[in-house]
Order: sequence, then structure tokens, then C-alpha cells
Amino acid sequence: MGPRLPLTPVVGDLPEMVPFIGPETFERRQGRKLRVRLGANESAFGISPAAREAMQAAVQDSWMYNDPEAYDLTEALSQAHGVAFEQVLVGAGIDELLGLLVRIFADRGEPVVMSNGSYPTFAYHTTGHGARLETVDYVDDQVDLVGLAVRVQETGARLVYVANPDNPMGGWRTAKQISDFVDAVGPECMIILDEAYADFAPQEAKGCVVTQPLALAPGNVIRTRTFSKAHGLAGARVGYLLADREIVDVLKKVRNQFGVNRIAQVGALASLADTDFVARVVDGVWSGREQLRQVADGLGLNCLASATNFVNIDVGGGARARQLLAYLIEADVFVRMPSSSPGDRCLRVTVGRPADHEIFAAALADAMTRVDPS
Amino acid sequence: MGPRLPLTPVVGDLPEMVPFIGPETFERRQGRKLRVRLGANESAFGISPAAREAMQAAVQDSWMYNDPEAYDLTEALSQAHGVAFEQVLVGAGIDELLGLLVRIFADRGEPVVMSNGSYPTFAYHTTGHGARLETVDYVDDQVDLVGLAVRVQETGARLVYVANPDNPMGGWRTAKQISDFVDAVGPECMIILDEAYADFAPQEAKGCVVTQPLALAPGNVIRTRTFSKAHGLAGARVGYLLADREIVDVLKKVRNQFGVNRIAQVGALASLADTDFVARVVDGVWSGREQLRQVADGLGLNCLASATNFVNIDVGGGARARQLLAYLIEADVFVRMPSSSPGDRCLRVTVGRPADHEIFAAALADAMTRVDPS
Repeated sequence: MGPRLPLTPVVGDLPEMVPFIGPETFERRQGRKLRVRLGANESAFGISPAAREAMQAAVQDSWMYNDPEAYDLTEALSQAHGVAFEQVLVGAGIDELLGLLVRIFADRGEPVVMSNGSYPTFAYHTTGHGARLETVDYVDDQVDLVGLAVRVQETGARLVYVANPDNPMGGWRTAKQISDFVDAVGPECMIILDEAYADFAPQEAKGCVVTQPLALAPGNVIRTRTFSKAHGLAGARVGYLLADREIVDVLKKVRNQFGVNRIAQVGALASLADTDFVARVVDGVWSGREQLRQVADGLGLNCLASATNFVNIDVGGGARARQLLAYLIEADVFVRMPSSSPGDRCLRVTVGRPADHEIFAAALADAMTRVDPS
Repeated sequence: MGPRLPLTPVVGDLPEMVPFIGPETFERRQGRKLRVRLGANESAFGISPAAREAMQAAVQDSWMYNDPEAYDLTEALSQAHGVAFEQVLVGAGIDELLGLLVRIFADRGEPVVMSNGSYPTFAYHTTGHGARLETVDYVDDQVDLVGLAVRVQETGARLVYVANPDNPMGGWRTAKQISDFVDAVGPECMIILDEAYADFAPQEAKGCVVTQPLALAPGNVIRTRTFSKAHGLAGARVGYLLADREIVDVLKKVRNQFGVNRIAQVGALASLADTDFVARVVDGVWSGREQLRQVADGLGLNCLASATNFVNIDVGGGARARQLLAYLIEADVFVRMPSSSPGDRCLRVTVGRPADHEIFAAALADAMTRVDPS
């Protein structure tokens, strides 16, 4: 060993932390391919044929650097959302953008508020920048917007994270509830409204997440969106945010300038235009949610209401969920579970194709015979 | 306007800064396509046919998240370089890795040493994290390794950046000089040895940049490599570093976990195996450097020695270089120039295909008739 590494104090104090273990890691551990991938909320409906064609054609252009402005995609997104070009920032997935937002708004030691057990990657970035996580428990399996606003006021936090529809619980809050939350938080605190699952929201949730431009109006609300879910481009790494242009300008001072792969930019642009494809995916997800609910019903289990492309199946307790999860992975069926109470009594299952659901149903039924009753 | 944004002190103080203006930006400004792209040190020789095939096949798998461990590529790289798996970290280009290295090693206000006018993106990240740049001028158009080591000692810097072969000047230092530099810096300071252009090094430079494992042996040397140059995958965004496993472990605590596009991982892996292709590219670059030298000769200009896929053509002064550059861009010929003395007396021209060189030669000859003599 040489001398200790000259790490910054923040980094020197960091624990090891991996927000998500990828399915490939399970495959390598077990030396076998998974039979179904229903754990990462990927889209089993694949990518748009238009995106596929555009991306395959773009492969040969990979010798050229990607456009650091992601101009064409940014322009199309600004039109799709009815906002100015300068209010859109494309990044390598929402993950990258969350890291940048924490970096610009949360200094070391400062409080950052989120739901307990909410998106692990946001927690990862918060910890990674030396800020202090302040978590608020879910109430009745829903994000506690009132509790989050109170915690912001109590701690003087300048950054709060809310996913709507929520991950990992799958629920949603209405436009009115989000609007009240924004009022309660006040203008001094930046609000990240992560709308990764917005495309899957049921009709009654559409007001809060799909229509325009409620959440952008207050200058402290930053909405994040992704091509990883309904567009099926998870592996391409394209997300974006909609925010006040002053915020976008600041992010451009610190971001990785050439961060978004060239082929990914082309694919996202083509997919954005293929609205029929996305509509079919959303239909498929709505049907698939119902199929998974029936699977749960058939096993005497409750499915939580979901506005996303996954459902939580309540298996009655955390120890039981962990046991079942282990059996499922062992059976090459990749699902996940929320990390914290109350979600950790559930298995979180991504909507797949009917054939995926059959394999999952059989494996879960088998696993249930092997674990203690709840 | 609402209240001022609650930016961290470091971010609040940042100036606007764009390390590189992309060629697409010039195209948009001028409303025309460029005729030749010889400014970004991209590979005019394109991508490996094997990589193209693998990437096109991988497009349809984009619905799946990328492997956050980039396992297959990391394994192949560790074998190619004769180092352990745990000594390799793949990132979304060297750019992303440089940002992470600054983040873990350079606290706000701390000195970071580099050559004056060296890689702008490293300067961007250093400033962006609130560290203080300490620059050392080039000597005889070469990196001043002695000066850099002295500056490290004087300032107590814990991080120093050296590109070898160098960008933007194109020169190189020998293995012995690098080794002496590492000794002079001492073990307390981390050394980033950016070897992005290593594949193009001429025979006499190979000792320092290609053979093993000189620069990895001391635990404070971090070597960076890329698929953007000889492999022609600039738009795919794949770079990597070779370093002590303790450093890699720390970087894994702060990196964007799912940062490297799925198709890019597949393409890099295929390209790495296509050693014949890379050898042909390197041959093409060596020939192309000579062609560009002849272009310069024909115009009575001197070409600096280069171990990279670009050359610097000395046009006699900074004002003249800026004038010529403006004429060339206006003529849809994209080249760049080093930002600082002594390099700013030069045009930096990427090796292209013979047809590119002809267009460049004609445009430069024309531009020279329009500017003041040096």
C-alpha cells in the first residue's frame, strides 16, 4: 500500500453503495440466462420500428461525435411539451440529470428531502455529494406530500424529490395535490418532479402528469422525463428535464457536454414522432397490469393500484417478500422489491408479455409453497 | 423573476463555459452542411465493420438497460492490457471519467496542475468542481514535465493532468521522461495520464504509451484511454481508465451507474477484437499526417511533429490563425486551433481522407490570399 488516497472529505466518507444490481449480474452469478426480466421496469414491448430503423442507419455515423446540444431532439421536445428550447435539457437518462441537480442545489451537509424508500439513485447522488437525506415515510402506500412539505419547512431544505407516478410504490397524486404541495413547499425550495412513468398514468391521473404546463409554471419545479419506459429505450440512456431556463443554463455549466450517445439521440427523436407506437405500448401496459392483477388474485394476493408499468404484489411481510424474491431469482425470474416499509411487503413486478406473466405466475406459485405462510 | 436559485457556492460562482463548440453548431449558424469535418479529431476512417454489425444487431435490445458493470467490455480490456478486472473502469468517454476524477480528488479551492491550453474539458471539470487551475506553459511546443512537477511541489497539488501524446499540440514525451516525471511528482499527488491518442504514437513514442505496464505500476498513476479515436466510436461515448483498484472502487461510489449506452458497449467490445481494422486506421493516419505535411509544405508552412491523428500547421501568429480559421469555417471547412500560446499560432487539422485534404488545401490556400501575411 502506498499513501492514503488524497480524497476530498465528502468522498472519503462515502460508504459502498450500488443503487441497483443489474440483471446481468444475477445471470453471471448463477451462470444461466434469466427466463424473464420483470425487475427493472423495462418495456417488454421493445422499441419503435421507426426508432430501430433510424438507429441502425445511424450506427455507421458513430465516428462523429454526438451533437453536445442535442439540438434536434431538444427542439422536438420543446415543441411536444409546449415550452421554450431553453427550458429543455437532454441528459444520459434521468439518472445523470438527478446527479447534476443535486450537485448544483445541495451543498455538503445540507438537507435534501425525499420519501423513504423512493428512487435509490436519487439517494445515491445525494449521499455522493455529501448532502444529508431527510426521508418521510409513505402513508397508505402513497407519497406523503403534506409530510414532505412539512419536512422541507422544518429542515430548511432547498431541494425535494417527488416521483409522480411514484416508484417503487406505483401510486400517484392528483394535479390538485401536486399543486397544493408546490404551494406548501414555497418558492425557496427546488422541487424535482420525476415523471418517468407519466406515460402510463391512468385517465384519472393524467391531469397531474401529462397535461400542460402546470408543473413548469412555478420557477422552482423541475420535471424529469425519460425515453427508458414507454419508448422502450432504457439501454440508450436518454432522459430530459423541463425547467426554468435559468436552471437549464446553470446545468449547462457543469454537465458532461458530450454525454448523450449519437445513436440514442437519433432513436429518441424517431420514437418521439412515433406516437402510435407509444400508444400501443401504453395499451399493452394497461392490459398487462390487469393480467398481473389476475395472477395475484389467483394466488390470493393483493395488487396495489399502479399508474406505472409495474405493479406491487403484497405478499404479507418483508421477510416473506425477501424469501420469495430469493426463490424467484434462483428460478431465473428477475423481479425486485421495494427496499423499505411499507413497500417491502411487496414484490415489484414489471409488466411483461403474457408469456412472461405465465412463467412468473408459475414460479411465484411454486415459491409460495416453499416459504412460510404470512 | 422568483427568488435567486439556491445554488451551491461553487456553482453560483461559475462562469459560462463551453469547452468545445460542436461542428453541428457551425452548420446551424451557417445554414449549410460542412464540407469536411477535420476539427474534432474524429476518425475519418469510420468504424470497424465488426462493430457496425454488432451494434446494428444490438439496436433492438435497447429496451433493456445497459449492464452497469460493463462486464464483458471490462473483462476484455483487462485482458488486452494485462491488468486485473478491478483495475479497469469504463465510462461514457474519457470526459466523464475526468469529471469523476476531479470530483474525488480535488476539493474546492485546491490546486490542480495542467499545461496551459491543454484539454479544455479537464479545465472545465476542474473549474466546475471549484478547484483552482494551476497551469504551466508548453516549452518548445512540448509538455513541460519538469515545470509541471515543480508546480505540483510548489502548490502542494494532489492532482495533475498530462496528455501523452499531447492534445492540442500533438507532441509526445518518452517513457523515460514520463517515468522521471512520476518520480519527480512523488506518490502524494495523483497523476492523470491521458492516453487518448496512444494508438497513433509513432514507433519512437511507443515505449511510453503503448507497452505495459509502466504507468500503472505506481498507485498514483491513472491512465485514460478511449474508443473515440482509432476505433472511430466518438459518437458512442466509451472511454476507460486503468488504475489502482482502490481508485476504481472509489469511482464506483460516485459514478453514473448506468452511464454507458448498451449499443456502445457492444460496439467497443467488437472493435477491440478487430485489431486488423485498428491497424489499418493507424496506417491511414500515418499516411494522412504525411499528406497534411505536404499540404503545409506546398503553402510554405511548417507542420509540428505529431503522434496523434491531427497535425498543427504553424501559420505564424495567433491573429493570423484566428483569421484563417474564420475563413475556413465560413468556407464550410471545420478545423480548430489551440486556445493558448504557443499553440495558437497554429491551425489544428485532423487527419482525413485524401479528398478531405484536397478540400482543406484549396480552402486554406484561398484563405491565405485573404489575410495579412505573417
